[in-house]
Amino acid sequence: MSGYDFKVFKGSASGEIVESTTHRPELTGHQVYLELTHSGVCGTDVHFKQADMGLGHEGVGVVRAIGPEVTTLKMQVPFPISPRLTTPTNNITEATEQVGDGCKKAAAPANGSFASGSVQDERFLFKIPDSLPSEAAAPLMCAGITVFAPLTQYGVKSTDVVGVVGIGGLGHLAIQFANKMGCEVVALSGTESKKEEAFKLGAHHFIATKDAKELSVPRKINHLLVTTSFMPDLDQYSSILAPMAQVFPLMVTSFDAKLEVPFMKFLLRGWRFVGCTGAPKIVYQQMLQFAGLHGVRPVIERFPMSKVGVEESMQKLAEGKMRYRGVLFAEEA
Amino acid sequence: MSGYDFKVFKGSASGEIVESTTHRPELTGHQVYLELTHSGVCGTDVHFKQADMGLGHEGVGVVRAIGPEVTTLKMQVPFPISPRLTTPTNNITEATEQVGDGCKKAAAPANGSFASGSVQDERFLFKIPDSLPSEAAAPLMCAGITVFAPLTQYGVKSTDVVGVVGIGGLGHLAIQFANKMGCEVVALSGTESKKEEAFKLGAHHFIATKDAKELSVPRKINHLLVTTSFMPDLDQYSSILAPMAQVFPLMVTSFDAKLEVPFMKFLLRGWRFVGCTGAPKIVYQQMLQFAGLHGVRPVIERFPMSKVGVEESMQKLAEGKMRYRGVLFAEEA
Repeated sequence: MSGYDFKVFKGSASGEIVESTTHRPELTGHQVYLELTHSGVCGTDVHFKQADMGLGHEGVGVVRAIGPEVTTLKMQVPFPISPRLTTPTNNITEATEQVGDGCKKAAAPANGSFASGSVQDERFLFKIPDSLPSEAAAPLMCAGITVFAPLTQYGVKSTDVVGVVGIGGLGHLAIQFANKMGCEVVALSGTESKKEEAFKLGAHHFIATKDAKELSVPRKINHLLVTTSFMPDLDQYSSILAPMAQVFPLMVTSFDAKLEVPFMKFLLRGWRFVGCTGAPKIVYQQMLQFAGLHGVRPVIERFPMSKVGVEESMQKLAEGKMRYRGVLFAEEA
Repeated sequence: MSGYDFKVFKGSASGEIVESTTHRPELTGHQVYLELTHSGVCGTDVHFKQADMGLGHEGVGVVRAIGPEVTTLKMQVPFPISPRLTTPTNNITEATEQVGDGCKKAAAPANGSFASGSVQDERFLFKIPDSLPSEAAAPLMCAGITVFAPLTQYGVKSTDVVGVVGIGGLGHLAIQFANKMGCEVVALSGTESKKEEAFKLGAHHFIATKDAKELSVPRKINHLLVTTSFMPDLDQYSSILAPMAQVFPLMVTSFDAKLEVPFMKFLLRGWRFVGCTGAPKIVYQQMLQFAGLHGVRPVIERFPMSKVGVEESMQKLAEGKMRYRGVLFAEEA
């Protein structure tokens, strides 16, 4: 039988991870078959652990075959071996699997990056620059873009002050990106436990928010990225927000949750609350380039791309113990 | 005694309007003495009815005297009589009294525009273009700028769809401005009672929101100005907001009120909630020019600048019966 068989790791009603084999027929049109080498593990994957669907949306792989109408890989990639793009077994180049517009399409059934292979449209694949290792690229495709988009698409200037609430999978990347963009960076965390690491990542100031009466900063914050997993108490931040500050609440909550905005402060101080998920394609490519150029690197914990690896990484993530992003490695990677 | 005496209408603990006489000494520096001819009546004045302070912040007057360092009036104004700028009794030009950054400084004690005169700094005065009558200029200085600022300072394009919730002092100006800017305008009101007027003002579509199950529009709204006096139910508007829509809640509430944002819709659809009050000085001047050029005119009800006139206009406003902005006229105006 022609086509491709590969392993996928799916959720199930009981919450147990199920390994199954998927068959995809011969490639058509713009399809590309990737052998996956890495996948980041994201908090939104945990939300789908009980769904019968492939999990994972921060994948990196190697192109093993391309469909008859694929053109961008031909155009963009220097081929060290030969132009035999349709040859399935050639290791032609490295590419990142990016699923649609980020976390939202984590829900694409049986299409996840917790897998040994994947069929993707070439128009949703991004070339990883040579300066960026694959295991670093993987977590950028959701955690990274989620903080890179607000930092690049909403008027943040290098002379501004950026606040990052929560130092986790997203926050530890936001601190690095904002630092490399020239911004003054304020890291905010519940306790002092991550203070030293925050400074190493690039924070210029650190605030422990738990039990703090009134927060203060040397210069007020122009752009606040809230990367906690819970709804923030916005009143607590009102003393450290500059006039016309932008607040980006980046957590994912239940669909009936309400964000409570202290209204008159918001109105009179000209604040903006900005919903932001994902970005146009070009911004993903810019992010990979920026991370490669400036040495922005996710701090990762390594797990095997296996039933056990998926289960252990998701467990650790759910317990809030991951420092700071889990990455699944294919056995041969 | 040298200087200026003029009447002011103040609030009082009992809520009764008190007429008193204020004396201001001879002008110094950049001060300008205005004989006030008109003042708009704003909802925020009602909030201060029980305070011992001058009310009103949408004033228009005639320059009667200028301080020794005043230069802008000399530079900008063609003087029909003579360059005797320091002559107190010359009717040199017409200017708008604008108090600081809009509604907020309505609180400036004994400095209101419900008065027969006012001493102001030249740097907060704006020339009214010949194309704009004084009684039309007055309501623009708070109601007007409150809607003109979001429509001009936040990336609204002529090809966008603008929604205006509430057809009152602010809303009836927002509809006119947005229409003249080339936008497609959707007016939203509780009932059908203002439908015909909304179309006359420039709305292209009208929606009665009360008892409506799911709202719909031909093209989704890119910028929604909420000009009601109460906190909006944002869930109701979610079906008519475009991706990345901006919402400007423009009501004034108590300081402990919370705006409840349906969080996941906000996040996934990339909406922005923008706090906006007032604007830089140049925007006020642009607004007056724009209103003069395009015939944007507040629909006003006339009251005398007297204790009775102030009381009646504030009463009508508090009852929600004003169509659409009350303006006090000086007796001789």
